[in-house]
Amino acid sequence: MRQPAGRSPRRSGGERKPREERWAELIEVATQIFYEKGYDGASLQDIADRLGMLKGSLYYYIQSKEDLLFDVISTVHKDGLAVVRARSEIEGDPLQRLENVIRGHVEHTCRHLVPTAVFLHELSSLPIDRREEILGSEHAYQGVFRDLVHEGQAAGQVRPDLDPRLAALSILGSTNWVYRWFRPGGEFSPEQIGGEMAEMAIRGIATDEALRSRAS
Amino acid sequence: MRQPAGRSPRRSGGERKPREERWAELIEVATQIFYEKGYDGASLQDIADRLGMLKGSLYYYIQSKEDLLFDVISTVHKDGLAVVRARSEIEGDPLQRLENVIRGHVEHTCRHLVPTAVFLHELSSLPIDRREEILGSEHAYQGVFRDLVHEGQAAGQVRPDLDPRLAALSILGSTNWVYRWFRPGGEFSPEQIGGEMAEMAIRGIATDEALRSRAS
Repeated sequence: MRQPAGRSPRRSGGERKPREERWAELIEVATQIFYEKGYDGASLQDIADRLGMLKGSLYYYIQSKEDLLFDVISTVHKDGLAVVRARSEIEGDPLQRLENVIRGHVEHTCRHLVPTAVFLHELSSLPIDRREEILGSEHAYQGVFRDLVHEGQAAGQVRPDLDPRLAALSILGSTNWVYRWFRPGGEFSPEQIGGEMAEMAIRGIATDEALRSRAS
Repeated sequence: MRQPAGRSPRRSGGERKPREERWAELIEVATQIFYEKGYDGASLQDIADRLGMLKGSLYYYIQSKEDLLFDVISTVHKDGLAVVRARSEIEGDPLQRLENVIRGHVEHTCRHLVPTAVFLHELSSLPIDRREEILGSEHAYQGVFRDLVHEGQAAGQVRPDLDPRLAALSILGSTNWVYRWFRPGGEFSPEQIGGEMAEMAIRGIATDEALRSRAS
């Protein structure tokens, strides 16, 4: 269950369960409204209206609209990062682990389309200190992909002339872009997209030798 | 030189050169301000202020802020589409032409970062009829990539199990994403990014046989 991640949200003790449920509902509605109207276009009044609450009651949970955006973005970022980190640590050679990471990232994106879209569109609406609080000092997400490419080079599985950062950005581009065109119940399933994207990415960076031993 | 593309912009005869120069300057400033403040956050007053004009004088060129957004987006889309279409028609086998298309697309994106960002962020701010007027009924841009993948399959150069639309979306994702991280004068040049992305994409979709004959 989600916990408030805003800057010192106002909470008191007692009635723990209902409060947390109410918070989860608030975040869900805020995510949807930021998605529909954009962060600048969305107001606390819109959010209160959809929840059937008075706007003043929102201040029981947050200090500002920015607290809600911070929570939406930090939650989807933290959850996605946990997925790719966990998969990068499963046993296997670097290309097997990268394949697994790509599948996980695509499936997570497809299953959390709306908060992912808010993350990718509205990150720049947060002040720089809160952005850095989420992303970390050195792009943790990108680092998972870059490190696996680098490990693959050390293991002779990835073309040595390739820049690991450029490879990571290329893979993140194709997989992140999914949030713009994927539709649940559409032509392709998350697993199918993840599988095909992983296959294209792995073949795109692998040495001829790694591809041969992979096929056999 | 750019021509007004807004919905019946108000223009009269005479003094052709200065008017067109003024229009180009107006579009350049509008692009920059939409980029900095977002379309919703930008006002005609902001644009007039930066041009050193009275806001009322803008109505000599346009009927609304939307006319400016329409022009910014339709121009960068039309120019980019012309680049990839021209390259897709240069002589060569399908993979050679696709490689050329990818390089052209990446270089165009890197050289027109600001209008590309406005296009990708603000397209949904246009009403649906004007969006369709720009994109065409069937995603012309995506079609160039998809058709080349399909031709490559017919020629035995591209893996037959790959869905051409999924391949096109993967390539467009990695290459479009460049607008989010490329910085002029940074670590990578547009040509280097275009070359590496093309190499990864081609290897990602090619048959083993096509790769062998390409290397030799």
